[in-house]
Amino acid sequence: MPELQWYCAGSPVAAPDNHRAAQFGDGLFETMRRADNGSLPLWPLHRQRLQRGLVALDFPIDTLAQIEQALAHFEGQGRHNSGLKLLVSRGGGGRGYGYHADMQPLVMLQAFEVPDWPSAPQVMTVSDVRLSHQPLLAGIKHLNRLEQVLARGRLARCWDDCLMLDGDEQLIESSCGNVFAYVDGRWQTPDLTSCGVNGVVRQWLLQQAPIEVTKIHRSQLAALDTVFVSNAVRGLVPVSRIDDINLPMSQLTQITDWQSQLQQLFSGRLNPVS
Amino acid sequence: MPELQWYCAGSPVAAPDNHRAAQFGDGLFETMRRADNGSLPLWPLHRQRLQRGLVALDFPIDTLAQIEQALAHFEGQGRHNSGLKLLVSRGGGGRGYGYHADMQPLVMLQAFEVPDWPSAPQVMTVSDVRLSHQPLLAGIKHLNRLEQVLARGRLARCWDDCLMLDGDEQLIESSCGNVFAYVDGRWQTPDLTSCGVNGVVRQWLLQQAPIEVTKIHRSQLAALDTVFVSNAVRGLVPVSRIDDINLPMSQLTQITDWQSQLQQLFSGRLNPVS
Repeated sequence: MPELQWYCAGSPVAAPDNHRAAQFGDGLFETMRRADNGSLPLWPLHRQRLQRGLVALDFPIDTLAQIEQALAHFEGQGRHNSGLKLLVSRGGGGRGYGYHADMQPLVMLQAFEVPDWPSAPQVMTVSDVRLSHQPLLAGIKHLNRLEQVLARGRLARCWDDCLMLDGDEQLIESSCGNVFAYVDGRWQTPDLTSCGVNGVVRQWLLQQAPIEVTKIHRSQLAALDTVFVSNAVRGLVPVSRIDDINLPMSQLTQITDWQSQLQQLFSGRLNPVS
Repeated sequence: MPELQWYCAGSPVAAPDNHRAAQFGDGLFETMRRADNGSLPLWPLHRQRLQRGLVALDFPIDTLAQIEQALAHFEGQGRHNSGLKLLVSRGGGGRGYGYHADMQPLVMLQAFEVPDWPSAPQVMTVSDVRLSHQPLLAGIKHLNRLEQVLARGRLARCWDDCLMLDGDEQLIESSCGNVFAYVDGRWQTPDLTSCGVNGVVRQWLLQQAPIEVTKIHRSQLAALDTVFVSNAVRGLVPVSRIDDINLPMSQLTQITDWQSQLQQLFSGRLNPVS
């Protein structure tokens, strides 16, 4: 019962010695929660994002079917109540940037334990690493993640995480989640047309409540009332402070409500999202 | 005598099943020529770029020494007159973007045959994939290469390669080389402060002749006289046409002269650059 397994055409294979995810970040990934009963409650949303990513990267049309075959094999191993990382690489062969129709996608699945995170609100700084604009890759969860790696690497220990802006000083996301803010009596979340990852919990929340997708400039941070971050493994995490700005946090109850619904989904006690 | 070998701390290891180059493109690479006598004539320039990249990505201070140990081991295998790909990954461990001091960098070396390229000038189109601005990563040869992969994937078969612009419509590079243009009686090459890879042959050329590093806007393409592309494995390749613009190519002799010098370097008959 390996914790990590590579697949090609739906069948287990040895770890590839060379493939395009390692060479160029040429692929996608998802980090998912598994419920007690072994299901992936947010799979329809992960699947939808994968599908968008596979189209954006021009992967072979049957790649999603191969991913689902690999998942069926791995799920049979019965690891429940845990996290599952899924990675798809365009495959091996060749040294150049060009790819060919005969390249066989490779899928990696890795089970991991979900830690007991502290429930306390987080304190965040604004990273000095700016997210670059690339509309062709915005929204999808591709493997070119050096901006996030740099942001985490520069994070001083006194902060839980950082918020990331683009070159126009617009708030985009945190290093590993989407951001939601209550301001002027309504919930808002940044527009991700030019950069950022369109998270599955972000998509779930946008289905639950009227939340405005808009631009939030750095200069507006001091006017935010309540802020939280969403992540597909951890759920929702309130933010109590952004650099020297202490947030009033008047809407903590709303966050707690959403977090409870999400925990019920994660535990398999609610029907999965469709 | 494997064509591909992974190393950890200078010693050969099995292919890693999971590491940060594959997960996030968290690493660097170099593609190099090996001379008949087994040397790497442009190694000092590759080494300098690696060093800059290792600092930019905050890799452990002894990573370059580990790379050189791996190279010494691999070179002992005596593959000459060929190409050598070098890749360094931040190593394994962890799922998150954050990295730790105890992560051991992994080095991959892969020998390849240098093909017999046609000597005819290339015809190029301008890609509709724009290079995004990220000054923290500009110049270095990191593993986040989806923009190049997309550009090659969209290239119609009638073109040899494509030129790539940034979001301001400034010429930056080709999909796999640097660009040089003769215009108004002087040689120019694009400024790479915001994006693009600072190629080793580009650096070598800047030492050979007065070449102006400047901005070249898309609107200036029609006014270019002679254009060529530089690449560390292939050398210099003239460009005869950019989309519907046929280039006068009055300076072909200069390209041929530089190409001869470079071929002598590649063959090990000149002293390596310092």
